[in-house]
Amino acid sequence: MTGEFELLARWRQRFPAIGDDAAVIGPLLLACDAVVGGVDFTAATPPADVGWKAVVANVSDIAAMGGTPRWLLAAVAAPAGTDLDGLVDGVAGAAAEYGCEVVGGDLSSVDGPLVVAVTVVGEAPDGAVLRSGARPGDVIYVTGPLGAAAASGWRRRPVARVAEGQAARRAGATAMIDVSDGLAADLAHLADASGVGFALDRVPVAEGASAEQALHGGEDFELLYTGPPGLAGIVVGRCVADPGQRTLAGSPLPPGGWQHRW
Amino acid sequence: MTGEFELLARWRQRFPAIGDDAAVIGPLLLACDAVVGGVDFTAATPPADVGWKAVVANVSDIAAMGGTPRWLLAAVAAPAGTDLDGLVDGVAGAAAEYGCEVVGGDLSSVDGPLVVAVTVVGEAPDGAVLRSGARPGDVIYVTGPLGAAAASGWRRRPVARVAEGQAARRAGATAMIDVSDGLAADLAHLADASGVGFALDRVPVAEGASAEQALHGGEDFELLYTGPPGLAGIVVGRCVADPGQRTLAGSPLPPGGWQHRW
Repeated sequence: MTGEFELLARWRQRFPAIGDDAAVIGPLLLACDAVVGGVDFTAATPPADVGWKAVVANVSDIAAMGGTPRWLLAAVAAPAGTDLDGLVDGVAGAAAEYGCEVVGGDLSSVDGPLVVAVTVVGEAPDGAVLRSGARPGDVIYVTGPLGAAAASGWRRRPVARVAEGQAARRAGATAMIDVSDGLAADLAHLADASGVGFALDRVPVAEGASAEQALHGGEDFELLYTGPPGLAGIVVGRCVADPGQRTLAGSPLPPGGWQHRW
Repeated sequence: MTGEFELLARWRQRFPAIGDDAAVIGPLLLACDAVVGGVDFTAATPPADVGWKAVVANVSDIAAMGGTPRWLLAAVAAPAGTDLDGLVDGVAGAAAEYGCEVVGGDLSSVDGPLVVAVTVVGEAPDGAVLRSGARPGDVIYVTGPLGAAAASGWRRRPVARVAEGQAARRAGATAMIDVSDGLAADLAHLADASGVGFALDRVPVAEGASAEQALHGGEDFELLYTGPPGLAGIVVGRCVADPGQRTLAGSPLPPGGWQHRW
């Protein structure tokens, strides 16, 4: 059995342009994420919520670069009986919420669970914040408490932190990622890309969530970023020079986090 | 039961930016198409061929605008046991063949058939050829004989007509579309968008294919375009002023063609 992170690591060597939440093409950002029935949601999830979340997951990737979401395409593989109009309502609602224009899409039938693959194009004319810019001594921030998604099982209308990401970029954030796999896993991604270690002092836990859910639960869509002292956000720790040092309150922190397996 | 074309027509009213093979955003083109196991290919199809075709379907959409494919993202929902490296080989091979850089992607597990959703970003700095520009009197062309895909059931490595699309644009093509749903259906799409009718004189049939397959078989990825006399390509007919006139050798031609149903 092969884990998602191992496969992605291999493919990133093959496709060196892959590596951040979104691809940077001049002033444009490109993000592409799919949500899958039975994995990301259940048969009982309203299609409008599925469409909404598929958009938010991608808008959050644009937010994690400090960009502005602008255009959206959605490819849908839908089993018989799917409430397609409800699904489109969810996509359109979230697109409008985040100022995205729906410019394209594709619709297929499938004898299997619903799959919604969304691509969002964003703009970052003054430059994007990558995962790879963190330096020893940088302070580590998050935009909010974590674990709410894991605690609730499914958040109907998650929020992407677009304004917060833009503000972090303007204020001099050195690296940024969204918390989609879990704080421990996503901070490990950022540290790997930047070649630094980290010392976490604390993890802000969302109401109703456990410390474990705050550390390893995914899909919170809060932003995690590094930079000089004094930025907006909740301080959770600092970057250190030794890439092998990865600690929470002095104890080693394994990356953990959700990954698909084959 | 609702047909794909009816749903798409409804959504195009809601999202007016949708309508061509690819979305036009300034000098950029965006195309998004998915291929689905059990619909577009079978469990016996090598994953490398699936990846190749998913890329070609999107590159063909860029070709149909007269553009140049440049960047590619792929979202994959793969069941246990999928040869993911083979799939990636196919995606990478076709991307390299057409000069696309793979800049992003997403990988999910699924308890269902393989779904590969590809987004290709292209460039058309001198303008794109839309579906909507055909005028009465324009000659109708195709880039090659049709029906080969339908006759063979599955073409392992279909070809996207990028150079031909660019040449048609430079030579003054007024409207263009790729033959993905079948000549009759795709010419109907072009005529609908342009507000014209058409009189087809003949349909060039690929070796081993029937006239029916040439007319209604999809996935040939040849280009269908209109323009002044004397362009490169095979002349198949001309546009007429009456949008209700849609004939082949003088007889009415129903659109037909493949569409998904729910």
